[in-house]
Amino acid sequence: MSAIDDILAANREFAKQFEPGPARSPRVAVVLCMDARIDPIRALGLPYGTANIIRTAGGRVVDALRSLAVSQAVLGSSELAIVHHTECGMAAVDDEQIRERLTERGMVAPDGMVFHTFRDLEQSLREDLEVYRACAMVRQDIPVRTFVYDVATGALTEVG
Amino acid sequence: MSAIDDILAANREFAKQFEPGPARSPRVAVVLCMDARIDPIRALGLPYGTANIIRTAGGRVVDALRSLAVSQAVLGSSELAIVHHTECGMAAVDDEQIRERLTERGMVAPDGMVFHTFRDLEQSLREDLEVYRACAMVRQDIPVRTFVYDVATGALTEVG
Repeated sequence: MSAIDDILAANREFAKQFEPGPARSPRVAVVLCMDARIDPIRALGLPYGTANIIRTAGGRVVDALRSLAVSQAVLGSSELAIVHHTECGMAAVDDEQIRERLTERGMVAPDGMVFHTFRDLEQSLREDLEVYRACAMVRQDIPVRTFVYDVATGALTEVG
Repeated sequence: MSAIDDILAANREFAKQFEPGPARSPRVAVVLCMDARIDPIRALGLPYGTANIIRTAGGRVVDALRSLAVSQAVLGSSELAIVHHTECGMAAVDDEQIRERLTERGMVAPDGMVFHTFRDLEQSLREDLEVYRACAMVRQDIPVRTFVYDVATGALTEVG
C-alpha cells in the first residue's frame, strides 16, 4: 500500500472522532524544519489554534517570508520562534552534493539555485535572523527568538 | 507570559518523557498550510520518521520547491501529497488586501511580490500541481496527489 493510501486510511479513523477546538487567533509563528522526526505541536506545546507552523528544509527562513507576512498581517501572530535542529539533513550535505544527487535522479536545479545547507547551527540561526531583519514585509517590532531543538532528547535550547 | 515562554515551559515537560522513535527514511512528503487548526501528524496518521511535512501559507507549492528537492534527492521521499483546506485565510483576502494590511502596520511588500491568495480550492490545487510539474528539480516519476482537508470535520478528500 502506498504511503498516501495509508494517509487516507488513517484520516478516515481520525475524522470519526474529530472535534474542532475553540476559535482563536494564532499568537505565535514558528519556523522549523520539515524533518520527519519532529512533532512541533507536541514538542512545543502548541494547542489548537495558537500557532502558525511554517516548515521548510532546515527551518530556513528564506522561503518562509511570504508565509510570515501573511501570518502577521492577516492572522495577527505577534511573536516568532525560529528553530533549527541537531542531526539535520541540511547539515549532512552541501549544495554541490545536492546538485549531484539531483543529477543522478535526472533532475536539475536552476542556475543560481541555493539550497541553504549549513554546517553550524548557531551560524545558521544568526543568518536566518539576518534574513528576517532584512525583510520589509515582516514585523520588526515583535519578539523574534532563535532555538536549537535536539532530536535525541526532545529539548529546545534558546541560542543568541 | 509570552507565547514563546509558554513554548519553553511546555518543552521542558515534553523533554522529560521524550523517547526518539525508530530510525527510518521518510516515504512521503506532504505540503500543507501553516494554519493553526491543523495537526497533520494526527490528522494524516504520520508516525515518527515517515513524512517530511512542509508547511506554507495556503499550502502553496511555490515556496516548497527547495524543500521538496531536498526531501526527494537527499532524504528519499517518493510520494507527494499537496493539501489545501477549507476556511483558509488565503481564500479570505486578496493580494491587494494583504498589501493594505502590511501598509497599515508599517510594512511593505517588494515590488512584484505575489502572495498566492486564491478563491477556489480545486483551482488552487490545479495551479500548484502545475507549479510542481514545471519544476525541473523535483521528481516527475512519483505519485503526486492533491487533497482538500475540511477543518470542520477533519476529513481529507482527494481532488482531481
